[in-house]
Amino acid sequence: MAVSEATVPGPPASFTRALQASCAAHDSNLCVGLDPDLEALPAGFGPDPDEVLRFVTAIVEATADFAAAYKPNSAFYEAMGPAGMEVLQAVIAAVPAGTPVILDAKRGDMENTAERYASACFDVMGASAATVNPYLGRDSLEPFLRRADRGAFVLCRTSNPDADMLQTLVVDGRPLYLEVARWCREWNSLGNVGLVCGATRPDDIAHARRVCPGQPILVPGVGAQGGDLEAAAHAAA
Amino acid sequence: MAVSEATVPGPPASFTRALQASCAAHDSNLCVGLDPDLEALPAGFGPDPDEVLRFVTAIVEATADFAAAYKPNSAFYEAMGPAGMEVLQAVIAAVPAGTPVILDAKRGDMENTAERYASACFDVMGASAATVNPYLGRDSLEPFLRRADRGAFVLCRTSNPDADMLQTLVVDGRPLYLEVARWCREWNSLGNVGLVCGATRPDDIAHARRVCPGQPILVPGVGAQGGDLEAAAHAAA
Repeated sequence: MAVSEATVPGPPASFTRALQASCAAHDSNLCVGLDPDLEALPAGFGPDPDEVLRFVTAIVEATADFAAAYKPNSAFYEAMGPAGMEVLQAVIAAVPAGTPVILDAKRGDMENTAERYASACFDVMGASAATVNPYLGRDSLEPFLRRADRGAFVLCRTSNPDADMLQTLVVDGRPLYLEVARWCREWNSLGNVGLVCGATRPDDIAHARRVCPGQPILVPGVGAQGGDLEAAAHAAA
Repeated sequence: MAVSEATVPGPPASFTRALQASCAAHDSNLCVGLDPDLEALPAGFGPDPDEVLRFVTAIVEATADFAAAYKPNSAFYEAMGPAGMEVLQAVIAAVPAGTPVILDAKRGDMENTAERYASACFDVMGASAATVNPYLGRDSLEPFLRRADRGAFVLCRTSNPDADMLQTLVVDGRPLYLEVARWCREWNSLGNVGLVCGATRPDDIAHARRVCPGQPILVPGVGAQGGDLEAAAHAAA
């Protein structure tokens, strides 16, 4: 029998602990992306919503033994229209209990609006965590940060070619993304804040890791974007 | 008879020209927000999707004579689930032809993903423009920027309390948001790029205006957030 959380004093189980438990249970740090590209579906799968759901569910089933987390990107579902949002809900529901789902949504807005985004990600879609954008500052992320049982992965150092335009601007003698990393450390009082640092920049992952020991770092960009898995994993360790 | 665009040499009609035409036709610079708060609907309107659509459509009808543009914020519709996205499509379709609809979505992602977001905003939802977030740099916004007939309003200086955390960090002796304003000027070669500068900071609107003469500035924050309409309009002029 599980201990009821309501009878246990102290804060509820944090997202980071749940993620760590999933990593331990699967003996893996792998997060599997679930981004259905309608123009590149394999033979046997058509572009209509039911087929896409069947395809993505097949990926979840095939990887369930070694995936510590899943990461659907909202854009691929939004581009399918309202029916795509039903597919996204069903994809998240198809992930085995205990394996966190990080909704890659990159949200961030005024606080009363951010409240709606957090509700959409966590309550409507059922995600365990979401990626968020720091451009508007802390209050725009507060509705995500205050949910101890849900994770917020803050965009810090992204893997795309033009990430340098803003993220490495020099502020007080150091790159801006390390200021964001510092905020991530401050914002982690409930144990639910992670960072996004792209695999294409292993040195910068290492810099962010030194600012945020013990916090989860989501490292996209291995594969199509050319990130080196071994270098990224070493830097994040 | 209108001149057919196909027979006119030169670039297609830009979003900014369409917006200017709407401002002239309505003798107004007013952009009306369409953010249904399910907890604050007036008497006679319930929280189910049909009722919300009826409420928002009534606002559009009541303001059609003097609204130069409309701005639904995606979060309020996403929080209603998949049915909310159908409401958003219907709201946008209910706006009179010739009046631009700016979808306040604050999107920004890797380029192939950003392509899906641009498609979701412009093609699936039918918006004339969208708000976008500059944290990832130019390539993350390119799918929005390359659509001359659709607008991209880049978050520059927002109206929320913690906007200073990132936007006024000093880079090369000036605040970061003015670097973003400079990018907005550079990115405007197709005449479709605007800025978002909150009404709560009229001095900063004026600074951004000096960097970007002639580009549209979307100024949220009048009303509930305490921005002063007269001061903001003067600064943006």
